[in-house]
Amino acid sequence: MKKDYLKLFKGKRKYLFYYVCGLVDGEGSFSVSFKKHPTLKSGWLVDPVFQVYQHQNNVEVLYLLKEVFGTGSIYRKNGKHPVMVFGIHSRRSLEEKIIPFFKKYPLIVKKESFDIFCQIMELMKRKEHLKKEGIRKIYQLAREMNFQGKGRKYSLEDFS
Amino acid sequence: MKKDYLKLFKGKRKYLFYYVCGLVDGEGSFSVSFKKHPTLKSGWLVDPVFQVYQHQNNVEVLYLLKEVFGTGSIYRKNGKHPVMVFGIHSRRSLEEKIIPFFKKYPLIVKKESFDIFCQIMELMKRKEHLKKEGIRKIYQLAREMNFQGKGRKYSLEDFS
Repeated sequence: MKKDYLKLFKGKRKYLFYYVCGLVDGEGSFSVSFKKHPTLKSGWLVDPVFQVYQHQNNVEVLYLLKEVFGTGSIYRKNGKHPVMVFGIHSRRSLEEKIIPFFKKYPLIVKKESFDIFCQIMELMKRKEHLKKEGIRKIYQLAREMNFQGKGRKYSLEDFS
Repeated sequence: MKKDYLKLFKGKRKYLFYYVCGLVDGEGSFSVSFKKHPTLKSGWLVDPVFQVYQHQNNVEVLYLLKEVFGTGSIYRKNGKHPVMVFGIHSRRSLEEKIIPFFKKYPLIVKKESFDIFCQIMELMKRKEHLKKEGIRKIYQLAREMNFQGKGRKYSLEDFS
């Protein structure tokens, strides 16, 4: 991390962590996507992801997140707008870095979706996503998680 | 403030303040609007405002901001989307609450626009917005401030 950043937080990483919570409450997203995958037993590939968006002019704040979490990648969001994304797709990093962080430091706006995300990750740890009934439950939870979203591509019937 | 909130921050308002910085870096906006006003000497009414947006489902975080700053109002944003706004329009509150807060606690993403906002407020304190040349300068600064915005309704020529 650029030294200047930590200086902004009076040299205290804890202050920075609370800043990160606020930023994630504003611009972060916990989500789970589903792709049909005929060779898997469950028929579906499940992809949990944590992302934070920023206009490309402010990409430096995404590098700050990368430093705070010690993982993640930064890439351009699909679409015509110059939006950059800090994303963590690795299940291990999600389990070992993201979930413990937001269990320790508070989210308000995204709290509910984070809690459901944790439930889904827990089900995946128990390999529920590899079973027909498990994937159905995960899909139901994912649907609750983004109640403000644009709706899902698939319907629950696709998972039966 | 609901007691629960401060509990989230281990009872420390300072942690809450850093959270607020992160949230404002994500969802906040410093802006200055201009309206033609023929009876004023400068010809223009200048309206600086600090705003934070949230989907109406998360309006409670805006009440938290209202409590932190001890001022401001919460209202629905114009338009079809169910978005709520925490807004401070009073120049006195901006000068006495918002500017000192963000001089003390750090913004990263919105730092540049906050700095320009402070310059504009300083010019207004010196009554520059009541003069032809002053208003031109303020408009130029305001244009820089929201370089990512959709562009301004007026052009610099309107202020000459």
